[in-house]
Amino acid sequence: MTRTYDTLLSRMGTGLQGSAIRQMGIMAAGRADLISFAPGYPDPEVFAWEAYRAIADDLLSRQSPSTLQYSPTRGLPSLIEAIVPLAQAQDIRCGPDDVLITTGSQQGIDLLARVLLDPGDVVLVELPTFTGAIAAFRSAHARLVGVRQDGDGVDVEHFRSVVARERSAGRRLKFCYLVPNFQNPSGTLMSSARRHALLQAAIELDVLLVEDDPYGDLFFDADVAAHDVRPIKAADATGQVVYLRSTSKTFAPGFRTAWLIGPAPIVARLDVAKQSADLCSSGLDQSIVREAIQRGVVTSRLPMLRDRYRQRRDVMLTALRASASSLFSPETPRGGFFVWGALRNGTDAQALVAQALAAGVVYVPGAPFFVDGTGTSYLRLAYSSAPLDRIAEGVSRLAAVMQAAEAASTP
Amino acid sequence: MTRTYDTLLSRMGTGLQGSAIRQMGIMAAGRADLISFAPGYPDPEVFAWEAYRAIADDLLSRQSPSTLQYSPTRGLPSLIEAIVPLAQAQDIRCGPDDVLITTGSQQGIDLLARVLLDPGDVVLVELPTFTGAIAAFRSAHARLVGVRQDGDGVDVEHFRSVVARERSAGRRLKFCYLVPNFQNPSGTLMSSARRHALLQAAIELDVLLVEDDPYGDLFFDADVAAHDVRPIKAADATGQVVYLRSTSKTFAPGFRTAWLIGPAPIVARLDVAKQSADLCSSGLDQSIVREAIQRGVVTSRLPMLRDRYRQRRDVMLTALRASASSLFSPETPRGGFFVWGALRNGTDAQALVAQALAAGVVYVPGAPFFVDGTGTSYLRLAYSSAPLDRIAEGVSRLAAVMQAAEAASTP
Repeated sequence: MTRTYDTLLSRMGTGLQGSAIRQMGIMAAGRADLISFAPGYPDPEVFAWEAYRAIADDLLSRQSPSTLQYSPTRGLPSLIEAIVPLAQAQDIRCGPDDVLITTGSQQGIDLLARVLLDPGDVVLVELPTFTGAIAAFRSAHARLVGVRQDGDGVDVEHFRSVVARERSAGRRLKFCYLVPNFQNPSGTLMSSARRHALLQAAIELDVLLVEDDPYGDLFFDADVAAHDVRPIKAADATGQVVYLRSTSKTFAPGFRTAWLIGPAPIVARLDVAKQSADLCSSGLDQSIVREAIQRGVVTSRLPMLRDRYRQRRDVMLTALRASASSLFSPETPRGGFFVWGALRNGTDAQALVAQALAAGVVYVPGAPFFVDGTGTSYLRLAYSSAPLDRIAEGVSRLAAVMQAAEAASTP
Repeated sequence: MTRTYDTLLSRMGTGLQGSAIRQMGIMAAGRADLISFAPGYPDPEVFAWEAYRAIADDLLSRQSPSTLQYSPTRGLPSLIEAIVPLAQAQDIRCGPDDVLITTGSQQGIDLLARVLLDPGDVVLVELPTFTGAIAAFRSAHARLVGVRQDGDGVDVEHFRSVVARERSAGRRLKFCYLVPNFQNPSGTLMSSARRHALLQAAIELDVLLVEDDPYGDLFFDADVAAHDVRPIKAADATGQVVYLRSTSKTFAPGFRTAWLIGPAPIVARLDVAKQSADLCSSGLDQSIVREAIQRGVVTSRLPMLRDRYRQRRDVMLTALRASASSLFSPETPRGGFFVWGALRNGTDAQALVAQALAAGVVYVPGAPFFVDGTGTSYLRLAYSSAPLDRIAEGVSRLAAVMQAAEAASTP
């Protein structure tokens, strides 16, 4: 007798769908020779292992109870104190009441979904957008509506027209979620002019912006600088923006330490929601991240990190140009972890996954990043964590698969 | 202009109420001389600080990527492998597919609520029960229905009659949540006979049991042994029980590492729900707990832990008998962290909190632990984390407050 328990499930439990990216990661983990461009993982070789070892040693020798005791749900006060000046260095004005520590930014997104969204409420997202956000908003049974973007980021005129359309249809629009810096999956860096125009439109139309910024520190080129990745939140004088900041891509994902900066009344509600979600985040992880901030561990390593990920990007793009340029010619990302683009002739990227796996390479097809059912010919290649000396070989395997598909479709 | 953002809130966001216990903890943290019997925190002096330091040092020196990389949502495979024999030592038969690592057991409770509960669905809970579970079930807008318990645990006849009543009213009953070992707040140890009878009733009536077991290792007296705290799950041959196990009270809460063992089809859904809740739990914390399990760090310390918490209990009970026996004479808990009882003459324990704070002592009033609006004369005193040499003084302050209230109510 195999029980399924289906009759016990909630509407959410019935509707759950696993993440396409996590699924790719699991498949990828099963094959030794596979070259994986699937998960957007950072490269563990560039983690500050020795600094974290020394910090953990100090913390656990000192036996300060806060390191291993329950933390306040809001976060360790000493970590929040360390974050405030870090935010100020990004031109974000905030105090401790505006900050919530979360168990990764995924929890920040999930708490926002739970505290703000009722079934049928509208959330605007970029076309394409981060699948982890889509999953959290879908769990809340929100209506996800796409806003077009181009090489400069969100199309602000389209944003205005979508807001007007949804509201005139009588729907409750709750917020617009976006990733302005080197977006996952598109790698797009939203221009300063667009950021300004979007914030003005959001204020005018009273739309809350949820700005997710995991990649802002990882810009590559001489023509990109700190002012280009300045958060929209930095210009927010009226409480229009909730800002999410992750340490996963610069410190390490394993610490699950992120923070959210937003209007105090919203943060207070998220704090209460976090009480029943996980009570508090890890005290040890929060303490290590606090010490690492205070000792400048990651700040001092950022030039090296930028250099290493730029090198990875260049290796991938060079290989793509050499072997696949007639079939796949993505934009050059100026930061972050991802190469993104569409296959020529509208070839379905999902349909190619099985062949790619057979050829020993894997990527994430683009359709799951689009909430409007488009994007079937797109694919995302992460250059961030495959072994550097295997990237060219992975691209070569992928190019062969693309060429075979092209040949098969040409009569 | 102060914005409240109230119009943006979801039904859940609007209804959020902070935990009474967390609130007491915050009040308690603000006064230097205050003696707090409020939070059910373990004593940081008994954490295995030096063992954790050595383990963290090994892990971070070894630079194994899994320590700081994203983990599988399900949990680090090496931790799950270490848990299976640990569960088998409790007579729980399980394989890796039956286990999910959660960010504290609070997350396990919350994921169950999300995957199983729709608004209006019925959850049965003990009278009284853990407030963290009440909060998670209320967030899902469940109907919480109390089942009576006595000194031997859940009243199984009442359980049967409540199940029949709720079902005959046409409601969907999803599960019964219970804490059989040294329950928070009542300290009750459910008898073996009751466990057996409850499982039989649950099978017969097809009610899923959610068995939460944070305190099972912490039994005190010569007349309590491992077989008395044997989980109901150990006798579950038909997939009727989901078992939650926390490391917070024995390893340390700061690791936020817990696990859930249940029927594979339910665990698979919870896994997907966890993807959007926080993607994965801390890799460092999971790695430390795995190593601590493999090295037997906590198992070897359990006799010392039991001894230390028993000593704390005895100090509190002795002080209560000496100064408050005519006003408050709770049962003797045989394990766990809590003394629990009702004030004589139905005095309202909530109303006394302000006087207690003024007298320099704090506790948690009982009403929030009852889902049926009763319990106003109950209070919970945690002996687990107040300084040992201050417990008698705290009880003395509390006795004075009780006596003053008694005198004021007697004409």
